[in-house]
Amino acid sequence: MNDNLDAFFKPRAVALIGASQKELSIGNVIIKNLIHYKFQGPVYPINPKVDEIRGLKAYPSIMDVPGEVDLVHIVIPPPFVPEEVESCGKKGVKAIIVNTAGFKEMGAEGKALEDDFLARAKKYGIRIVGPNCQGTINSDPAFNAYCNFTFTYPEPGHISVVAQSGGVGAVIMQAFYDMGIGQRMYASNGNGSDVSITEIISYYGKDDETRAIVLYAESLENPKEFIETAKKVTARKPILAITAGRTDKGAEASRSHIGGLAGSISMELIYKKAGILTFGSQEDLCHAAVALSSQPMPKGNKVGIITNTGGPSVIAIDELVSCGLEIPPLSEKAAEALKGTMLESASIRNPLDVVATAGPGHFKSALAVMMNEPQFDSIYLNFVTPPFVDCENVAREIAAAAKAGDKPIVCNYMTDKQKWGGTSKILKEGEIPCFDFAETAARALHALVRYNNIRSAKTGEVKHFTDVNTGVVRTILDNARLKGRDVLTAAEVYGILEAYCVPVASWKVTENVASAVAAASEIGYPVVIKADSSAIIHKSDVGGVAINIQNAEEAEKVAAAMQSKLGSDIRFFVQKFLPKGRELIIGAKATEGVGHIIMFGLGGIFVEILKDVVFSISPVSDEEAKEMIGGIKASALIHGFRGESGINQEKTVEIIQRISMLCCDFPEIKELDLNPLFASGNEICAVDARMIL
Amino acid sequence: MNDNLDAFFKPRAVALIGASQKELSIGNVIIKNLIHYKFQGPVYPINPKVDEIRGLKAYPSIMDVPGEVDLVHIVIPPPFVPEEVESCGKKGVKAIIVNTAGFKEMGAEGKALEDDFLARAKKYGIRIVGPNCQGTINSDPAFNAYCNFTFTYPEPGHISVVAQSGGVGAVIMQAFYDMGIGQRMYASNGNGSDVSITEIISYYGKDDETRAIVLYAESLENPKEFIETAKKVTARKPILAITAGRTDKGAEASRSHIGGLAGSISMELIYKKAGILTFGSQEDLCHAAVALSSQPMPKGNKVGIITNTGGPSVIAIDELVSCGLEIPPLSEKAAEALKGTMLESASIRNPLDVVATAGPGHFKSALAVMMNEPQFDSIYLNFVTPPFVDCENVAREIAAAAKAGDKPIVCNYMTDKQKWGGTSKILKEGEIPCFDFAETAARALHALVRYNNIRSAKTGEVKHFTDVNTGVVRTILDNARLKGRDVLTAAEVYGILEAYCVPVASWKVTENVASAVAAASEIGYPVVIKADSSAIIHKSDVGGVAINIQNAEEAEKVAAAMQSKLGSDIRFFVQKFLPKGRELIIGAKATEGVGHIIMFGLGGIFVEILKDVVFSISPVSDEEAKEMIGGIKASALIHGFRGESGINQEKTVEIIQRISMLCCDFPEIKELDLNPLFASGNEICAVDARMIL
Repeated sequence: MNDNLDAFFKPRAVALIGASQKELSIGNVIIKNLIHYKFQGPVYPINPKVDEIRGLKAYPSIMDVPGEVDLVHIVIPPPFVPEEVESCGKKGVKAIIVNTAGFKEMGAEGKALEDDFLARAKKYGIRIVGPNCQGTINSDPAFNAYCNFTFTYPEPGHISVVAQSGGVGAVIMQAFYDMGIGQRMYASNGNGSDVSITEIISYYGKDDETRAIVLYAESLENPKEFIETAKKVTARKPILAITAGRTDKGAEASRSHIGGLAGSISMELIYKKAGILTFGSQEDLCHAAVALSSQPMPKGNKVGIITNTGGPSVIAIDELVSCGLEIPPLSEKAAEALKGTMLESASIRNPLDVVATAGPGHFKSALAVMMNEPQFDSIYLNFVTPPFVDCENVAREIAAAAKAGDKPIVCNYMTDKQKWGGTSKILKEGEIPCFDFAETAARALHALVRYNNIRSAKTGEVKHFTDVNTGVVRTILDNARLKGRDVLTAAEVYGILEAYCVPVASWKVTENVASAVAAASEIGYPVVIKADSSAIIHKSDVGGVAINIQNAEEAEKVAAAMQSKLGSDIRFFVQKFLPKGRELIIGAKATEGVGHIIMFGLGGIFVEILKDVVFSISPVSDEEAKEMIGGIKASALIHGFRGESGINQEKTVEIIQRISMLCCDFPEIKELDLNPLFASGNEICAVDARMIL
Repeated sequence: MNDNLDAFFKPRAVALIGASQKELSIGNVIIKNLIHYKFQGPVYPINPKVDEIRGLKAYPSIMDVPGEVDLVHIVIPPPFVPEEVESCGKKGVKAIIVNTAGFKEMGAEGKALEDDFLARAKKYGIRIVGPNCQGTINSDPAFNAYCNFTFTYPEPGHISVVAQSGGVGAVIMQAFYDMGIGQRMYASNGNGSDVSITEIISYYGKDDETRAIVLYAESLENPKEFIETAKKVTARKPILAITAGRTDKGAEASRSHIGGLAGSISMELIYKKAGILTFGSQEDLCHAAVALSSQPMPKGNKVGIITNTGGPSVIAIDELVSCGLEIPPLSEKAAEALKGTMLESASIRNPLDVVATAGPGHFKSALAVMMNEPQFDSIYLNFVTPPFVDCENVAREIAAAAKAGDKPIVCNYMTDKQKWGGTSKILKEGEIPCFDFAETAARALHALVRYNNIRSAKTGEVKHFTDVNTGVVRTILDNARLKGRDVLTAAEVYGILEAYCVPVASWKVTENVASAVAAASEIGYPVVIKADSSAIIHKSDVGGVAINIQNAEEAEKVAAAMQSKLGSDIRFFVQKFLPKGRELIIGAKATEGVGHIIMFGLGGIFVEILKDVVFSISPVSDEEAKEMIGGIKASALIHGFRGESGINQEKTVEIIQRISMLCCDFPEIKELDLNPLFASGNEICAVDARMIL
């Protein structure tokens, strides 16, 4: 990874190969954007057929450009791109944005052209953004680099955006613009043939003026590298992402199938592992970015509310509480202090309703008291602009209080922004994050709390168990592979689990009926007897499973019946039959580029009817395992219910971690399911398991 | 209810008692609003100390006004209000908006003043909006009546708003304004001392120009009347409401406690019963109103998608699918038709990606084919405005397609509305509902489908069971009341249930140990024996409950032990002990003004851990009962799971309806809980029940 992307974001000169005089063309729009956005260096249109474009001298080829060129746009059709990249190499160009579409995404021919230009770029050390992309923007007045064919001209600010989809990137950029919020850098890298989203995030991470990063990705080239990089960035500044493809249909549309149970959820898990804040809606994400890029972090989830109107504070409280935030009462001291300064009709509690007729003095006092209440970590403000109040001075009090204090403020600012232009300007200059609705302001505040939680969360320890026997597992897996088997036998599965000290019900594999009966006696009745043959997949369908066998007589009868039905060469898998406790399920599934996704849930109806399962990417730390257990909807059952005993959490955490370690040590394990484990009293024990390579 | 509110919305002349020259005062702002909004009749400021206000001649009192006055604002302090109402009566005023606050909401003194002016108004047949309110607005150019102190001047349109909280009303009005969406009428009635929200809704319902009604209420004076009125309105046009106070903290803030398990949910249930569309966010509500007031209803939930950008269609699909909408594939015929007209890089399927370079011709063809696909009920459009495309003509094609077709269209319109002003105007004139984000457009489309579902849903039948014995119940209840008891004995509860033919486990009440044993033999072992005394509330805590008694010897021992522990005067409640089946819970709770709220759920962990219960307001129809059963999260269990039998739905529906009828017949029943009922095989049977008056 090379995250020096200065040539894309801080180019000193830009050329455009495929520049055009036709207004409705990309080759013209990019020139227009560079000029209108006041790019600080020279712009060189390249077109052999014309002399000038939009008043700029055009050059027949990149080689004819007099000065050095850091960045080149290429907008000509795909077949001509490789040659132009070659020319750029000769010219000493550092970076190219290939806006043209029609490469890898269109099939083999396009893929060949993409490979061709990439090889040439590599030869000259040129970095490529694209193809099939918009490009980059840097609002830094030292550059004013609008190397992009979109239409929103962001003011300078502290939010940087990277979007795989230019459409989504454009929407987000426009949303900030419409809110009057500045932006720092922007990039949409399309096919991502060279410069990756990971590199761009790393670059933004090192940019001091970037305080929050907005990300839209439908897939990632190298999720492990992404997680490592993003983790470092999120420790310093927030990354906010939309989880695209969260439904199967959505995932299908984004063509980023990962498939199966852990399918469309893996982007969500990747983001979680990296400490990225995810959002279900672009608008919520934009609002959160505004708050995160302007406010200090709250120390906790306790909110003090000031309002000058009733209804919106009901809505705000509904939303705050739904988000898990708390609205503690005012202290007596604070209430006492406010009694002297508020209007008679004010409601002195939390929410503090200063009422609509409250003026600057009332707000000043309210803010001073609420900001100083030690039990509030943040301030939520409802500010409607009554036409009979001196709102500009109210705004000045809000801005002053924010500046003086170290608690974040969010404001539901209810106004006509044209008519109250002066008030709006004061709030903007005071960097007060203002939102049009109580719910959106509440959710933005929630995002601040979420980021604080992420930053202050214990990451936990990925335990390395030294009591495991990797040799045994290696031998079993190699042996299965040698025999061309993907589905392991019960004996193999239990052998592997035992080698990793995962508790399983006592078992034995025996060769004939007599030894099966002997094994059953050794294990102790009741037992389960299964036909042990990898040739039989659905054992219970063919009479290959018998449970709750009480004695030797029954065992012999059952085993003999199996033999006569399924062939004399079958072996018998004999296992202790355990009384049914609370069922658990722990699973693992290898996921391309990510590693294994580990699943945890309660078995039976909880997984089958209520889909109450949680996932985490391996390696799973102890804290992550605890979070998984606490993360199921029925987690209260862990602590027992109606006299049924709970589940030993420590042991469950350990088993999750041992499964995680097993998968990390043996990546060839494609799927592993312990379903169910029985948890009863303090014991947990796998009673059925399967494994696929 | 008198819903002729013309004097408020269509006044011919307006006076303002308490008019002021001071700009930052309500008495000045209302005059300003009437003038600026171009009120079509005369405006009479009333102020004995000045001659003119904002260029209008001021009058010393309402009696001095030369012409007739339909509507008067009163903004003077509370103590002076009754007298002015009296004067208005003498003058022949039809309607008064009391903007002044400080009445009922401030305590007894204010309440007395409110009662005083109400009595005087009634004497003269004057209707009152307020006190403690904003007032009304009518954008009809024949009136331009801005009788309100807020600041948003809506353009004429088809959405009417009624808000108990003026703050929320102002936010919603401003939101429509910011979206460029016209509005029809507006009212915020504050304390609602006279004109009620129900009357305003009824009035809007009869206004032909109102196509959608937006409602914000935290409480309702007469929920039953509201439900009846709103039902009639929602059959003709949609009502959209925010559910305020959906959290306990929120409900507390709104002071509209209803209390207990069915507390903050009752507004939601009232709205559901009335066929009102509810929203968790004001913004979603506003977006839905825009779609509902401009588009035809979809016939179903199947959506065809046209997009000129990739990412936003992934987000749209995620949201549409999450909302339960379907994205069926294109027919072969349609795909074939599109192959000839789309760009080479277009993706011909559903979503149909026409790609960013698509021009008006491509959109025209795409719209024609998609609008004509019989399997699509609606069209979702992603339209980003590429600077290299003739977007105005694309917009014309969209507007033309909408006009020609009978399917609703919603559009995620991604643009800079200033730069693409022409395009935006064409879409607006074509009444295409445009939204800034894919999610919001998708949710607006979902609202159209929801309203169609409400309108086409079977309301079902409230069954009147003729086999019940009301006389028995009357006697039991009267007897309990005579004895001053609120908590009924088991025998009373089961007697009532049996009188309403609700199946209960066989039972008998006996006077002494010997007769208890005899009763047990008669019922058949195993049995349950309980000490039957209303003096003992928590029977099991004091050893007053014994279950699973297998024979006479055990029964005698148990009964004797209870007697020696709890006193020789106790009686014994003997009941059949049933094998545990799937547990159900059915409950009812009387709720002020609403009637009874009926609850249904699965018992045990489903209610206690997963809170998986549903509610409905009585009387519950058969369709509503079915919807309740299907509405729990674990509803799949109704059909059985892993060999366990399912639950007889018909019988469950009947029991819910019988409980509903019992509560309607005997409103004095405060709480009733059948918890649990055992459902096993085809049978359902209450095995424990309690009832409180």
